[in-house]
Amino acid sequence: MATTIRDIAQKTGLSVSTVSLVLNHKKHRISKETCDRVFAAAKEMNYHPNHAAVSLITKRTKAIGLIIPDITNMFFAEIAKGAETRCQELGFSVFLCNTNDKPEKDVEYVNVLLDRGVDGFLLVTSFNASENMAAECFKALRPTEKPIVLVDRVVSTEEYGTSLPCVQSDNELGGYLATKHLLELGHRSIGCITGPMGAQSSQHRLFGHIRALQEAGITFNPALVREGNYHTQTGFSLSSELLDQGVTAIFACNDMMAYGVYRQASQRGMRVPEDLSIVGFDDLPFSEFAEAPLTTVKQPAYLIGECAASKIIGMINNPGEVQENVQFKPELIVRKSTSKPNQHKGAGIL
Amino acid sequence: MATTIRDIAQKTGLSVSTVSLVLNHKKHRISKETCDRVFAAAKEMNYHPNHAAVSLITKRTKAIGLIIPDITNMFFAEIAKGAETRCQELGFSVFLCNTNDKPEKDVEYVNVLLDRGVDGFLLVTSFNASENMAAECFKALRPTEKPIVLVDRVVSTEEYGTSLPCVQSDNELGGYLATKHLLELGHRSIGCITGPMGAQSSQHRLFGHIRALQEAGITFNPALVREGNYHTQTGFSLSSELLDQGVTAIFACNDMMAYGVYRQASQRGMRVPEDLSIVGFDDLPFSEFAEAPLTTVKQPAYLIGECAASKIIGMINNPGEVQENVQFKPELIVRKSTSKPNQHKGAGIL
Repeated sequence: MATTIRDIAQKTGLSVSTVSLVLNHKKHRISKETCDRVFAAAKEMNYHPNHAAVSLITKRTKAIGLIIPDITNMFFAEIAKGAETRCQELGFSVFLCNTNDKPEKDVEYVNVLLDRGVDGFLLVTSFNASENMAAECFKALRPTEKPIVLVDRVVSTEEYGTSLPCVQSDNELGGYLATKHLLELGHRSIGCITGPMGAQSSQHRLFGHIRALQEAGITFNPALVREGNYHTQTGFSLSSELLDQGVTAIFACNDMMAYGVYRQASQRGMRVPEDLSIVGFDDLPFSEFAEAPLTTVKQPAYLIGECAASKIIGMINNPGEVQENVQFKPELIVRKSTSKPNQHKGAGIL
Repeated sequence: MATTIRDIAQKTGLSVSTVSLVLNHKKHRISKETCDRVFAAAKEMNYHPNHAAVSLITKRTKAIGLIIPDITNMFFAEIAKGAETRCQELGFSVFLCNTNDKPEKDVEYVNVLLDRGVDGFLLVTSFNASENMAAECFKALRPTEKPIVLVDRVVSTEEYGTSLPCVQSDNELGGYLATKHLLELGHRSIGCITGPMGAQSSQHRLFGHIRALQEAGITFNPALVREGNYHTQTGFSLSSELLDQGVTAIFACNDMMAYGVYRQASQRGMRVPEDLSIVGFDDLPFSEFAEAPLTTVKQPAYLIGECAASKIIGMINNPGEVQENVQFKPELIVRKSTSKPNQHKGAGIL
């Protein structure tokens, strides 16, 4: 049986109300010595407060819901790790909710977490979240007035009645850095495999790519852009089309798709970077072990998670405070998958 | 403000007790039509039961604590995904607790989760969990009699007063399959980089390695074994020592360390598999994108997580039922990192 306050009172010879005052951190005039005795007995007897009873009184559960598309995607795993670590430091626990990028799961988990009475939400919406599904989430959330922080992916929050703070990378800058690097190496025919165009983060990476081209005086050619879905397979298949068009470099808008580009190059007997330069986005821990270690744009995923957790707990503790968006600066990591273009390739074809 | 049962009564014109009976799934003789009206109003008004109040009465939280060493290790991420998906299907939620392989965190999280009144524990203990730390966890858990399932890693549960069911791979068989494959290719001088020897799973992989050698009539040479820690860096440094001893193949007891072996080989200008064969363990999703796609022993991590979740919920729902251990059969995945030994290498040295 679990230890109760009554058991501790009996053990210490103190009254139930004294023990209760001490263990519930209420205002009291009980001596430090007595308090120490209570805490020592509580520890020795493995006392744990009844969280449900505390929650009923405080209306707080000190639990956060973390809704993410896929915990086996290293980028989200890093976010989850950062968020959970910070929550734990601040006395909060995290419910893990994995949607497999299915928008109907977003809605399902929002309702489950509302049932559980979580104090706040960290929400990475599904990629293919249609406006409708996001609207349904926010319709359920609105009457509860629960704090919400959007992480990585921004969606329309009209149904929530107000804009929500977002923590993410500066995706536009990331796309810009990736393409600028390829341009500086001398590439002029650069393919781009984007994420799903419904997602703002994907759009922004493409905008950055286009800005870099424009700055270099190169007319943007939409025929060299393909819409992927951030999975390896689309990197493989779409890079085939781009290579047929004679590109000398490919900017894959995440590392997973970049791995597919390597595989395509290898299947064609092309060498990376001699015959094809590749840049990714994310800097997954495996990217440095690739055939030619991958040049990529590093996102500080752990910091994003940590920051989002700090923000949501701040919002819970200080309701009404104005919340700003946070954007982290991504960083270009130059490895061995990029070099000057091979003059014989590409030039003749385009 | 959140919707209450009183609001639904007002909206439907029914009594509070009628609405309460319906929404709390109590025995009643209320017509189906009336029930449907209540459920429709509850949905429309975004009603969510007060979980804390329900928990106080049922003594159940329908929450599981998942304590794992590192959510950014793909193997554990897969386990978490499998466990969380199954829990969600069965109406349970999962608290994610990431220990960073620090044994003192195991103890801390056990206490946090006891405070939260979780119904059960899925426990992947820290690698370097000394007997003392595990003992401290089980000392805290014992009086609560909460169901616990050990996942992947078996530890002494003496302090808990009884043995606990474990869900894991057949690690001995995995080690056996890896080494047998190398022997069949003709390797005779095979290095082995193990996990931490304090962990039973690491020991078993080594036992399997030794059994395969013995079956092939090769005397086991302890000088060709190095103790790693499952991180890439030890794969890199320890493989250097083994290569100096002239091995023609290395069995790294997880894929992360195998990546370190690739890097060492590359630094020495050795080709994989021509100059060195490498076998890993886990089959992380990235292993097929390695320089020479990695031959490895596949563990069904997702299934392990799913199975552990089914088991813990079974234990919660049917206390007292006898629980068996579950072992999954690992599978050898042959890719391109292994081939016949290069006759010129190794032979001359050993």
